[in-house]
Amino acid sequence: MSILVIGSLGLDTIETPFAKVEESLGGSAVYISLAASYFCPIINLVGVVGEDFPEKYIQLLREHHIDLDGLQIIKNGKTFRWKGKYDYDMNSRETIFTELNVFKDFNPVIPENYRDSKFVVLGNIDPELQMNVLNQLHNPKFVICDTMNYWIERKNDALKDLLKKVDMLIINDSEARLLANHPNLIQAGKKILKMGPKKLVIKKGEHGALLMTDEILFTVPAYPLENINDPTGAGDTFAGGLVGYLSKVNVINNEELKRAIIYGSVLASFCVEKFSVDGLLDLNYLKIKDRFNQFFSITHFEE
Amino acid sequence: MSILVIGSLGLDTIETPFAKVEESLGGSAVYISLAASYFCPIINLVGVVGEDFPEKYIQLLREHHIDLDGLQIIKNGKTFRWKGKYDYDMNSRETIFTELNVFKDFNPVIPENYRDSKFVVLGNIDPELQMNVLNQLHNPKFVICDTMNYWIERKNDALKDLLKKVDMLIINDSEARLLANHPNLIQAGKKILKMGPKKLVIKKGEHGALLMTDEILFTVPAYPLENINDPTGAGDTFAGGLVGYLSKVNVINNEELKRAIIYGSVLASFCVEKFSVDGLLDLNYLKIKDRFNQFFSITHFEE
Repeated sequence: MSILVIGSLGLDTIETPFAKVEESLGGSAVYISLAASYFCPIINLVGVVGEDFPEKYIQLLREHHIDLDGLQIIKNGKTFRWKGKYDYDMNSRETIFTELNVFKDFNPVIPENYRDSKFVVLGNIDPELQMNVLNQLHNPKFVICDTMNYWIERKNDALKDLLKKVDMLIINDSEARLLANHPNLIQAGKKILKMGPKKLVIKKGEHGALLMTDEILFTVPAYPLENINDPTGAGDTFAGGLVGYLSKVNVINNEELKRAIIYGSVLASFCVEKFSVDGLLDLNYLKIKDRFNQFFSITHFEE
Repeated sequence: MSILVIGSLGLDTIETPFAKVEESLGGSAVYISLAASYFCPIINLVGVVGEDFPEKYIQLLREHHIDLDGLQIIKNGKTFRWKGKYDYDMNSRETIFTELNVFKDFNPVIPENYRDSKFVVLGNIDPELQMNVLNQLHNPKFVICDTMNYWIERKNDALKDLLKKVDMLIINDSEARLLANHPNLIQAGKKILKMGPKKLVIKKGEHGALLMTDEILFTVPAYPLENINDPTGAGDTFAGGLVGYLSKVNVINNEELKRAIIYGSVLASFCVEKFSVDGLLDLNYLKIKDRFNQFFSITHFEE
């Protein structure tokens, strides 16, 4: 099984009350791909960087068997950069700057050998581009898409067209409320399901996640952690763990979807324990399964 | 089995963007007792009201077989009053006024026939008074206490003395952080357990609850609701459902504690669906068990 990931690659400068990293590896496609790489032998990445993108990061991605045939490296171009600052509670973050650079003109071209990918994650980019990607694929089995407030407000029609074509939408709670124009999350979720996606995941940050389909509702808390060092990328990591697990079992049913939500939460918990992508670099199946089992034991009760 | 409840009775004026009620039945002891009444045949209530406390509310409590031998009715006294206002998201509330009135000089006297109560809830009052109550009891089996920022800051020593004597502390997340002086909830919880209470429950409002003991950690989301009309009393209702269930099974072990947390969440979910105490008036075991089963099905996954 193979997973196709489209999204951003960037250089992140992150400040918390405890530490700071500069120009560290970041971007949605990076977090999604690294998380998924623990479940799936082939990750096909499509993204764009400038010539200034450090070779060591290329190597790091390759070491996680992430295929970079779809990575455009723009001559004389400058890589996407973002700087964010977190407060003590790690919930509110301030964006100090966003430099889109080469990401501004990103137009994903899917290499021929990627077009048969069965699992697809359309990271948060212009919904028209997300649709373009879909049109380049042969016969994907399960398509997940992400979006954000910016596109909900500015490209609403294109987004609505896209939602009819995807299997799962993964967004956070404020995005769900905005998209549905409803303050109650469950009612918002029902409205969004009517827009087209067969499954909806609403991420609530440190408060867990919600899965809604026409058939089921499933709600989980986040994995409780004693140390949270950097929440950057947690949402994308969640999506990566989720799609990774689904691609591994290659079955989409209610029970596997629920487990996929837990695996997404598990990967996100590893992510936020360390700075930048560091929490996703030295995992293995045993560590992941162990935390999954822990998750079961701290949430399970008998009827 | 009998439950002893000490706390406030009051007249609440509550405003939300959708409705308003004036001088409705409220107070911690009321919510706790009503919720517990669905599990336990004898609820012994100790509290204070003024002569202006409406007879219809006395009747309402009696109809839920809540014993009022311990209710002090102060001649010419005025009942505790509170007015709160909620915003659209129902999470932030503003206290418009608090009139302590007769509650200001509340000094709980436990009637002789209450002193053998096995399950005890010390609602949020001065920790010195909570300790006085404990000293009047013969041999309680399980003592739960609540507190608030005010006492954590102003009666810290008395509170710490009390915590050594209680079986379970139930507080919300901001109170836990303040009491432990630690921003991380899990680390705060560990610090609080070292202060004495054998079990700790941290309520997170619409985000669920956390149970911590020396042996286990258990975390649950809140029951997802499509309509939240009035969050007033949800935390006290949670405690009432929890103690009610424990008194019913009369066994304190990890599995029953977990189920008690779920029953607490279930009762709280009924509470917030309607205004004031209305959601707690027409329940029955079947409705409660049905929602418990629903709770299981929306949170359960297979290992």
